[in-house]
Parts: sequence; structure tokens; C-alpha cells
Amino acid sequence: MHAGDDLGALLVRAFEATGLVPQDGDVLAIAQKVVSKSENRYVLVDTVVPSEQAVRIARLCKKDPRLVEIVLSETRAVLRTAPDVMIVEDSRGLVLANAGVDRSNVDQDATGRERVLLLPVDPDASAARLRESLAAFCGVDIGVIINDSLGRAWRLGTVGVAIGVAGLPGLFDRRGEKDLQGRPLLTTEVGMADELAAAASAVMGQGSEGRPAVLIRGVPWPRRNGSGKELQRSRDRDFFR
Amino acid sequence: MHAGDDLGALLVRAFEATGLVPQDGDVLAIAQKVVSKSENRYVLVDTVVPSEQAVRIARLCKKDPRLVEIVLSETRAVLRTAPDVMIVEDSRGLVLANAGVDRSNVDQDATGRERVLLLPVDPDASAARLRESLAAFCGVDIGVIINDSLGRAWRLGTVGVAIGVAGLPGLFDRRGEKDLQGRPLLTTEVGMADELAAAASAVMGQGSEGRPAVLIRGVPWPRRNGSGKELQRSRDRDFFR
Repeated sequence: MHAGDDLGALLVRAFEATGLVPQDGDVLAIAQKVVSKSENRYVLVDTVVPSEQAVRIARLCKKDPRLVEIVLSETRAVLRTAPDVMIVEDSRGLVLANAGVDRSNVDQDATGRERVLLLPVDPDASAARLRESLAAFCGVDIGVIINDSLGRAWRLGTVGVAIGVAGLPGLFDRRGEKDLQGRPLLTTEVGMADELAAAASAVMGQGSEGRPAVLIRGVPWPRRNGSGKELQRSRDRDFFR
Repeated sequence: MHAGDDLGALLVRAFEATGLVPQDGDVLAIAQKVVSKSENRYVLVDTVVPSEQAVRIARLCKKDPRLVEIVLSETRAVLRTAPDVMIVEDSRGLVLANAGVDRSNVDQDATGRERVLLLPVDPDASAARLRESLAAFCGVDIGVIINDSLGRAWRLGTVGVAIGVAGLPGLFDRRGEKDLQGRPLLTTEVGMADELAAAASAVMGQGSEGRPAVLIRGVPWPRRNGSGKELQRSRDRDFFR
């Protein structure tokens, strides 16, 4: 995966190589890292001059001040800092550690300079572009999820989360439907795209599996074009920030 | 599903009816409600006398004080209350709304008395019993996840979560492994059982689908006997309570 690569074209070649034929109603989950690389979301660490705020936070969090500066450039609000912990609401509205920038994302460019990889600027737009590209290549309408593994309040372990969504609902609002006894469902805003992202993440693995995309078939979902944005709990609906 | 039903026997009949043959290494996800019913975790609402604390919270949360009393009886700490919101750390260590007791769980017993259904007392023990029962019936070692749909901080929509786990890891600790470039993985405590629970939940649906158990095959997981407990973030590792 290189900057500027056409993800749709790459996926079509992967479909052909594996004999997979995408069908209407499938959902393709693709790892954030791959999307970010194709969008050249690299920052060269040695080009960054840390601000006073970055230096202060870096001291507290025991991080490289230049990395903290990069995180701050992607951040709307710093929510918690502690040694090894920097949790923010990022410029996309996601609540996550280090605005998605961490040392496991650091590598070197061709000349050996250290660089980090940021999340896509607008993951919903990235998902929509990929959906259009796949529709053009394959002639089928498949949903697209860009997934990332994020930590959580209350529970240990990262889980796959849908940071970008196109062609399927992010949030599945089932209020008004009935349960098996015919009573109305009450608590039924389902984080549909997040559940599918978690499923994809379990299949992708995190390490050396090299399985950056997963095609999900057979999950019934309403044909609404939603977003990852709609899964973000706004500050006024959130008691835990 | 009735109180006292042998879940293992019921599942074996379901396997036979559907032609599914469970294999070593499969993971069975089963909905919390089914497990709770088999364990007769009902409370008759009219037997409950609300405490002063319950009356006070009920006024604030606009809930039936008897339901609040039932929630309190399952609660270790009340974390947030607001109109229609009561989020607690329950006696099992789960952080969730209403200790898992809500109106969608209310029905009537044979004599028409209102009752609610509580979570299993010890979901890990319930999962272990079911795992043993399935091993005895089918002669195979399959992992068991008891899943429930829970709300989250920061994100809208419920997602499936593993409240009970047996025969597979809850948390998958991959620190020390290498990524594709051969560098050590850094943030790699994966909420494995939660990802599988979310996948199962997407397939189960929430409403009238009537699909209370899902057999998951082909996900590679280390043969460690973990727990749902290990997915619970302890208070001192949690900045968001």
C-alpha cells in the first residue's frame, strides 16, 4: 500500500486473486491504516516544533513532545492525561487515545526519517469514495466500513469500531419495532456498524496476519446510507467525558 | 425457554434440527436473556418494597421505585443518574444502565404478575456450566460467550458485549508479538470475546428474529480458558467513571 494507490482497484485485484465476487448488500470492512496510507496521511516527526502545551503534556504523559504536538493538531479537546495516557476528543469527534497516533504507527520514510500516520481527515468521505470506486469497478452496491481498534471506558481491550461508514447505517434505530412477544422494543438504538467493525477486527487480527480487508455477507441491514459520525455520542448525550 | 431448562440439551436439539455439527474450537455465543430465564432470575415486582434511596433516585430518573430498588439490589455503585438514565457498576463489576434490568425485560408470570429478569448471578460460571454440558453432549470442546447488548460512553448505540466467557480468552494479550514489519506490537490487549460477542449480536438482532444463539467458526484464538471478568476495567485503570 503506497500513497496515492487507488484502493478500489487494489481491492478488485484482491477479489480476483481470492475468487471473491462481491454482491449487492455485502459490507466491506477495511483497516484504517490502509486507508490512511493510501491518502498519504504521514507527518515527518522532525518537521514538528512542539508548543508549550505539548511540552507540558509530554512531560506528564512521558511521551515525545513532537508526537504530542501532532496529537494536539488532530485534537478538539484533551479529556484525560496521565503517565502513558492521553485521551482526547479528536477533530473528527472520536474519543480515543492519542487521536489515533501512536508509536505502533511510527515508521520511517524512504530516506530513513521517522514519520507517523494520522487517521483519514474525514473517514466517512473516505468510505464514500471507496464505495463509489467499488460500484464503478464491480457494478454492485456494497457498504463500506473503515475500522480501527480503539480502547474503551469501563472495559479492557481494544475492539474494532467503525470510524467511517458509507452505504449502510452506522446506527440502526429499531425503536417502534416489536419483540417476539409483540411488545415494542425500547432500548434499540443498535451500534450496527460498530458491531460489524468488531466482527471484522476479530477476523483481521492486529499483528502479522496481513488481512487488512474483510467482506461481510448475510447480515440483514436496512438500505440506508448512514455514517460513522452518527455513532458519535455528542457531549450533551454523554455523561462520561 | 423455561426456568430450569437444560440449556445444553436445548442447544443440542437445535444443532440437530439445523444440521449444525459443533467442532472443537467453535465458539457458541448465547443471549443473556436465555441464560437468565433458564436460571429463573425473575423477580416479582409487587414483592419489592423500595428503600428511601430508591424512591429518591426513581423521582430523579422518572422510574418505578420498585424497579430502582431491584436495580440497587444488583448494584455496587451508582455512577450517574439523570432523567431516564441510571448507570451503575453492578455486583458483577459490569458498568451498564439499570444493572441490566429494564422495562424491555418486564413481562408477566403465569398468574399475570409483573416480573423482571436479572442478569445471571455469575455469568462466567454460567458459561462454564454450559461449556461442560456441551462437551458432555457433543464430545467437543467449544468456547462459550454469554452476550448482552450494552450502551457505551462516547458512542451511541448498543453493542454486543461478552458478560460471561468460558473456554476462550476474554482478553487476548498480544504484547510481545510482532507486526508485519517485524516491530513489536505495542497496544495489543484485544477485547477478543467482546469482538466475537458484537459479531454474534449483529447476527442475532434485537427484536423478533428469535435467533438467541450463534455458532462462530474459524476465528483463530489461543486455547486459554479466560473469563468475562478479565474484560472488566478495574476502577484504578479507568479514568471514566
